[in-house]
Amino acid sequence: MRTFDNARPVRIAYVGGGSLNWATKLMGDLAHDGTLTAEVALYDIDHAAAERNARIGQRYSAAAPSAKVTYTAEKTLAAALTGADFVVISILPGTFAEMASDIAIPERYGIVQSVGDTVGPGGFIRALRAIPAIYEIGLAIGEHCPKAYVVNLTNPMSVLTGALFRAFPDIRAWGACHEVIKTRRTLAFLANQKRGEIHYRMADAKVNVLGINHFTWVNAMSVDGVDMMADYLAFAEQHRDSGWRERPIDMNDEHERYFEDMSKVKFDLTCRFGIAAAAGDRHLAEFVPQSWYLDRHRDFAFGLTPVEYRIRERSQKVAAAEALDSGAPLPPPAPSEEAIVEQLRALLGGEEHVSNVNLPNRGQVAGLPEGVIVETNARFSGLGIQPVFAGRLPPAVETLVLPHALRQTALLDAVLNRNADALLPLFLSDPLVQPIGLARAEQMFGEMIAATRHCLPQELACYCIIP
Amino acid sequence: MRTFDNARPVRIAYVGGGSLNWATKLMGDLAHDGTLTAEVALYDIDHAAAERNARIGQRYSAAAPSAKVTYTAEKTLAAALTGADFVVISILPGTFAEMASDIAIPERYGIVQSVGDTVGPGGFIRALRAIPAIYEIGLAIGEHCPKAYVVNLTNPMSVLTGALFRAFPDIRAWGACHEVIKTRRTLAFLANQKRGEIHYRMADAKVNVLGINHFTWVNAMSVDGVDMMADYLAFAEQHRDSGWRERPIDMNDEHERYFEDMSKVKFDLTCRFGIAAAAGDRHLAEFVPQSWYLDRHRDFAFGLTPVEYRIRERSQKVAAAEALDSGAPLPPPAPSEEAIVEQLRALLGGEEHVSNVNLPNRGQVAGLPEGVIVETNARFSGLGIQPVFAGRLPPAVETLVLPHALRQTALLDAVLNRNADALLPLFLSDPLVQPIGLARAEQMFGEMIAATRHCLPQELACYCIIP
Amino acid sequence: MRTFDNARPVRIAYVGGGSLNWATKLMGDLAHDGTLTAEVALYDIDHAAAERNARIGQRYSAAAPSAKVTYTAEKTLAAALTGADFVVISILPGTFAEMASDIAIPERYGIVQSVGDTVGPGGFIRALRAIPAIYEIGLAIGEHCPKAYVVNLTNPMSVLTGALFRAFPDIRAWGACHEVIKTRRTLAFLANQKRGEIHYRMADAKVNVLGINHFTWVNAMSVDGVDMMADYLAFAEQHRDSGWRERPIDMNDEHERYFEDMSKVKFDLTCRFGIAAAAGDRHLAEFVPQSWYLDRHRDFAFGLTPVEYRIRERSQKVAAAEALDSGAPLPPPAPSEEAIVEQLRALLGGEEHVSNVNLPNRGQVAGLPEGVIVETNARFSGLGIQPVFAGRLPPAVETLVLPHALRQTALLDAVLNRNADALLPLFLSDPLVQPIGLARAEQMFGEMIAATRHCLPQELACYCIIP
Amino acid sequence: MRTFDNARPVRIAYVGGGSLNWATKLMGDLAHDGTLTAEVALYDIDHAAAERNARIGQRYSAAAPSAKVTYTAEKTLAAALTGADFVVISILPGTFAEMASDIAIPERYGIVQSVGDTVGPGGFIRALRAIPAIYEIGLAIGEHCPKAYVVNLTNPMSVLTGALFRAFPDIRAWGACHEVIKTRRTLAFLANQKRGEIHYRMADAKVNVLGINHFTWVNAMSVDGVDMMADYLAFAEQHRDSGWRERPIDMNDEHERYFEDMSKVKFDLTCRFGIAAAAGDRHLAEFVPQSWYLDRHRDFAFGLTPVEYRIRERSQKVAAAEALDSGAPLPPPAPSEEAIVEQLRALLGGEEHVSNVNLPNRGQVAGLPEGVIVETNARFSGLGIQPVFAGRLPPAVETLVLPHALRQTALLDAVLNRNADALLPLFLSDPLVQPIGLARAEQMFGEMIAATRHCLPQELACYCIIP
Repeated sequence: MRTFDNARPVRIAYVGGGSLNWATKLMGDLAHDGTLTAEVALYDIDHAAAERNARIGQRYSAAAPSAKVTYTAEKTLAAALTGADFVVISILPGTFAEMASDIAIPERYGIVQSVGDTVGPGGFIRALRAIPAIYEIGLAIGEHCPKAYVVNLTNPMSVLTGALFRAFPDIRAWGACHEVIKTRRTLAFLANQKRGEIHYRMADAKVNVLGINHFTWVNAMSVDGVDMMADYLAFAEQHRDSGWRERPIDMNDEHERYFEDMSKVKFDLTCRFGIAAAAGDRHLAEFVPQSWYLDRHRDFAFGLTPVEYRIRERSQKVAAAEALDSGAPLPPPAPSEEAIVEQLRALLGGEEHVSNVNLPNRGQVAGLPEGVIVETNARFSGLGIQPVFAGRLPPAVETLVLPHALRQTALLDAVLNRNADALLPLFLSDPLVQPIGLARAEQMFGEMIAATRHCLPQELACYCIIP
Repeated sequence: MRTFDNARPVRIAYVGGGSLNWATKLMGDLAHDGTLTAEVALYDIDHAAAERNARIGQRYSAAAPSAKVTYTAEKTLAAALTGADFVVISILPGTFAEMASDIAIPERYGIVQSVGDTVGPGGFIRALRAIPAIYEIGLAIGEHCPKAYVVNLTNPMSVLTGALFRAFPDIRAWGACHEVIKTRRTLAFLANQKRGEIHYRMADAKVNVLGINHFTWVNAMSVDGVDMMADYLAFAEQHRDSGWRERPIDMNDEHERYFEDMSKVKFDLTCRFGIAAAAGDRHLAEFVPQSWYLDRHRDFAFGLTPVEYRIRERSQKVAAAEALDSGAPLPPPAPSEEAIVEQLRALLGGEEHVSNVNLPNRGQVAGLPEGVIVETNARFSGLGIQPVFAGRLPPAVETLVLPHALRQTALLDAVLNRNADALLPLFLSDPLVQPIGLARAEQMFGEMIAATRHCLPQELACYCIIP
Repeated sequence: MRTFDNARPVRIAYVGGGSLNWATKLMGDLAHDGTLTAEVALYDIDHAAAERNARIGQRYSAAAPSAKVTYTAEKTLAAALTGADFVVISILPGTFAEMASDIAIPERYGIVQSVGDTVGPGGFIRALRAIPAIYEIGLAIGEHCPKAYVVNLTNPMSVLTGALFRAFPDIRAWGACHEVIKTRRTLAFLANQKRGEIHYRMADAKVNVLGINHFTWVNAMSVDGVDMMADYLAFAEQHRDSGWRERPIDMNDEHERYFEDMSKVKFDLTCRFGIAAAAGDRHLAEFVPQSWYLDRHRDFAFGLTPVEYRIRERSQKVAAAEALDSGAPLPPPAPSEEAIVEQLRALLGGEEHVSNVNLPNRGQVAGLPEGVIVETNARFSGLGIQPVFAGRLPPAVETLVLPHALRQTALLDAVLNRNADALLPLFLSDPLVQPIGLARAEQMFGEMIAATRHCLPQELACYCIIP
Repeated sequence: MRTFDNARPVRIAYVGGGSLNWATKLMGDLAHDGTLTAEVALYDIDHAAAERNARIGQRYSAAAPSAKVTYTAEKTLAAALTGADFVVISILPGTFAEMASDIAIPERYGIVQSVGDTVGPGGFIRALRAIPAIYEIGLAIGEHCPKAYVVNLTNPMSVLTGALFRAFPDIRAWGACHEVIKTRRTLAFLANQKRGEIHYRMADAKVNVLGINHFTWVNAMSVDGVDMMADYLAFAEQHRDSGWRERPIDMNDEHERYFEDMSKVKFDLTCRFGIAAAAGDRHLAEFVPQSWYLDRHRDFAFGLTPVEYRIRERSQKVAAAEALDSGAPLPPPAPSEEAIVEQLRALLGGEEHVSNVNLPNRGQVAGLPEGVIVETNARFSGLGIQPVFAGRLPPAVETLVLPHALRQTALLDAVLNRNADALLPLFLSDPLVQPIGLARAEQMFGEMIAATRHCLPQELACYCIIP
């Protein structure tokens, strides 16, 4: 295979370009890559934040002599998208205030949520807020850059990636999430342990992913052509009770504490269902009955992330961004583990790349309906993004996954059709909502809608059962 | 259309022909019908009971001058099946002792079951016992009377009807259940109320049924060509809190008390999900989280049926059968509401008949997988049994129904493949089991298996986690 | 079951109400029925013809004392549809002049067509003309009478019934065709022959229909509960070479000659493929290679219908209608064999009715894709129109049927999307077109489009390869 | 990614190991590769041929100092398969004598076949002979080496790869065919032409393949990340009439003459259907009506391969093998373009590999039924062989491909169920057979069966209509 020497410049539109997380990672990765000639157009409803990121981006480029990347902040979505070859979408629909109510109201009803951004009552309401915004972006892509490749980084991932395809069915989009990387790192660790030396890296750990975002499973693993599935199951059994982390956790560090993950949930699910659960414990726990893990989150040693902490953390990140903007030293050039730049290079004709992404089901997960957004490996190449056939979940796991996939699809339908009546029945059927009983669940739903009403389309905001 | 005048004699094999319920109903219906020439071969592992029923049957025939039906008791299944045109299957795998443990053990873990024969921990374990027996019957039908029509009356209906099709895929079988009749009676009542006179009977109330046995739903209703769906929804709303029965309940009558059903569950589900739930409250409640209805069964005014009562009731029925056998007066000739004789006549070329039965899904319920056993209307005619397309459940209801259908299918696979490892994961995923947590559920499963081990195939009985 | 005594008046909109065939049949059937109170609104682009039919209809009603049917001619489609409970669609898109070129041009290329209205080059071009017109009617129904039941009588049946569902997916429509009745009559004849007396009528002959319109097959037959499939196959074998008709044909009668059908094609296909072909020979022959039957239509004793004769016949019908309008005696009251009035009564709550109609595939024909228009039995009742599961065609027959179904669906897509480029590839793949080679087929297509260009949407008419 | 340094020895069983074509290619490729440590067990019903190849193989290994490959000839299939990690299947069921009658008999009926080994009358009869043999091999693999990877090289590829999966559904098999390579070479040529220098190789030309073996299509092409589809369509249009070859053909060379392929069929189909036909012209022509290309094979400049020539060619190959066995110089080490060694390395954990292979459809070709054998790209990695989602054929092409896929599947069913009655209807429906009429086709079928009867299972050989 030839060396990648693509000199054609690409235009990258970044929607949510004022972002404090992802945008900076991308800047670092582009600076580190050094082979791509790119023009990055940042767009954000907070234009000042986009401008700040543009300035920081320029610093990254200046610091990396080989980087041929320029940054601009655009004032309109249309301006950012026009001419784009790639679009990155990373937005926060609503603010942390709404996210706080997504967590706090259910808590009063006895429902514990570790993250609250994917499923459960919090994920449900968050989706209501986010779907219309992402749908508009999808329409704009269809109008301004229909051939562009589009990566969505926004949660709830499945529902929002689905919204893009509803807006513009020919969109070349995928949803990218890094949760499975943790399992691949564990697998590389295990292979090195078996070999007796550090030889393999995360990229050497091949896993066959199937499921839906944040509720992903792995039914085949291999390193160096050797089937590692039995080794992994044994490892899970061995560490199921004690928990396991490659590096020790520092419980004095607030971030580490709130994002704690000792893989006890992963390993317990893995042992019980005979297939590796492969997402963060905090996410997995929200897809199953509260009685399984959330009720005993201390025993299972995973953190509940307080929104109050997210707010503080955000302030720190703003401060850090302002410092960078004011000339503070850039972090040393190191690639993130995000696959986006590798995916982009592969689409441009560089080395082919396979990684797990979120796409409409075209059969890659047997047993899940056509069209629901699933997560499996996909091939990135000059031919585009093509899902790789992943097989079928074992039946017991399928009974856990399938209702979530159906609910996400139906939620999307309800929001896009502005069908307010369809919302409550779907909400009632979520496993985290079920145990509180139907009448209390209805009351809770009313409170949650009331708290976020100002962020909803009018037809959906009219659900008003609270006197 | 010509009058039905079929003079060809038919041979009916009755497997479980010592039955104290169904067999007597069939005798009464055949006596009442008067048009069929039939030879009924009763087979039961309790041969004396079959002989007793044969004698009682002969009395029925003698009493109804137009009836051309004879009864014999056969000593082997093969003898009963050979030459059969129709086969009725109504057996009790295991005894009430096992059924008692199916209810009592979960009760110690806080799980309330109103019936315990369909889903939930009780239904699951009952299926383990019954599948191998029914499968053997299916094989015998394939060998001795492959062209016979076969009606299964045994619970758990979905799983066992599925077992027949696994044993002999070309079997002309269906599963018959009368739960939906109650909704049709309510609908006829409502139509009469609207008309201001008693004009319509149950048979005039047409309903479009879809779902799985005991968790059936109705999305279209019509009487006399008039769409009654909105009327029914209004009726459900009106009686949701107070409950409703056509005739008052006598709470001093033990039977009525234990089988109490004021339609409050039906109506509450109907109002919440916008589609009529159409099975007995005691059954419906077991398919959904315990927090919804079972926890408050007194408020929702439905009975929990004690197995202890079933045992006493059975003794009474034995006594009644013995009395009939000794010359006690036969009940007055009146048809039951069971559709079996009508179905049989239609298959023989009489008036076509449409009623709701259990069949493998061939698309009649969109959204449920091909091959799972579903309940919808089917056409009975000289062409055989053909499901009628029923449409799709609303998404929220589908998320409740689909996991049960998948679990039933996977349970069948596990039992037929003697795959003991697959059982516990499926058991854990049942909604009634979920709230007690994974570790306690595993322990409960071990206890339940231990209690019923003597009725299981050896490969499945080896699951032995209790010290 | 109660007697049908529906006193509610229904409004029937008849689109193409100037029709000389179907409208008169319907008038006769309604007069003969006597139980329905109906108001028939006739609409036709030839308003005078609709007015004439309205006057004739009034004569029918006056002559049948029990008939409670009135007729009016409406000037606009909207006026006819507004308030309609039922809609009948029977139109002729274009004139016989276009139909003449549909036959004549292929004839010059050596392609023989017996009818030319369903598939083959003639059916293809006819569909191009008709789809846009029917689609407009479907849109109007969605706007003016979305709850109405709609029966389409227009050919090409499959494509046009599909067009209605594309225009308005919730339409309660079906396509009605009487071709299968001939097979049912033959079956009744056979059953009577076997019994030795005339006892059974067509309605007693039950057949399980599956396939697509005019290429329908029957894989199960029954009279009086007796399986007649083997008898029918033997009958077909016996009469395969000689041909068979219940009544002798009068070859001096022009109509009989041109519509000749001795069942030789039906029987030959039946013997070769082991399943009964069940449509007129003239239709069946056009779905298979010309080398099979069309090339030897004299040997196979079926007529080719000259358009020149259709034109003359039409003149006679116009004259007959004018005579009726001027007071000529009405034909004696006798029901046609069309099922429409029975279907209508069943939908209104009368006796349930099952007959074969054309509907989108919801699984009723396994092996054919979801959504293509298939012909099977359907249940007509107060619950609406519901297809009955019909099973799957044998593989060899499926390979013949499926490409037609796919081509019809793709043709509909192409016309509705005004995608002119998609037409020729589809045209080339038709079995009647294949043998003349690709280059000549392309030339023929150009000529046929040129001849009918004035009847096509502009975007499709621009295909212009003839210098 | 790490360098491939797999030192684990692999055992390769070669079924048909006396082969004069494929076995030698594999030896050359293994010698050239140099990185694999392999033990090759050759099995052939002609044991002497296997022994000869073993000796030749040893010479290859000896000549390539880095090759760590040994060769043995095994006397039984079981011995060859036991312990195998990889199995290669390349057999000739029957002899060239049967192949000669597959061509000669249809020729007398006016049916021209350019190859006669895939579809058409010749391919059909060849499948009858080969399916039972391959099925037995599949069973033996399930017994002796169920985890082995299995590559089938035998035609008819689709049917026989299907037979392996029927014999052992968990088989890790794929069918490999090099026809698409020609299109990739053309694409590389075109990209180099556009660039003005020789820069790209076949491996740089990425194509999205979909269809069935030898009737494969390409709907997306890319070199270096640039979409080349429009360029290819223009190239096809440009060379459609004149034909095109990268290197000139030597019509004096008998082999070149008989295997002539000027891409005129490929390009003509490509221009007419708007998607690239991507198999050899001699193969493509047999899937479509004879009137399209076979009737004018001289105009379309593709060869008809006489079996008489195959027989002579085989003698030359035997002579060449004997010479090699007697010490004649080995050909210079050069890799063939076959992907097998690359696939094997990827499965062992080397660099991932994507190429087009034949596998049961799991959704990778939308629109074709689940389970039929389709050809698309698949990912080869340590996780095994996983098809890559390829999309859907345009409708007109789908109507041409689908009947072949259905016929192949039904043929497999018929042979495995020994259902002789199902064969003739399937045979009649083949496009090459259709034009001769049903009666003559039946007669031809009888002659062809008679000529090959000694190679068929008894139940299928009894079809005997020739006096």
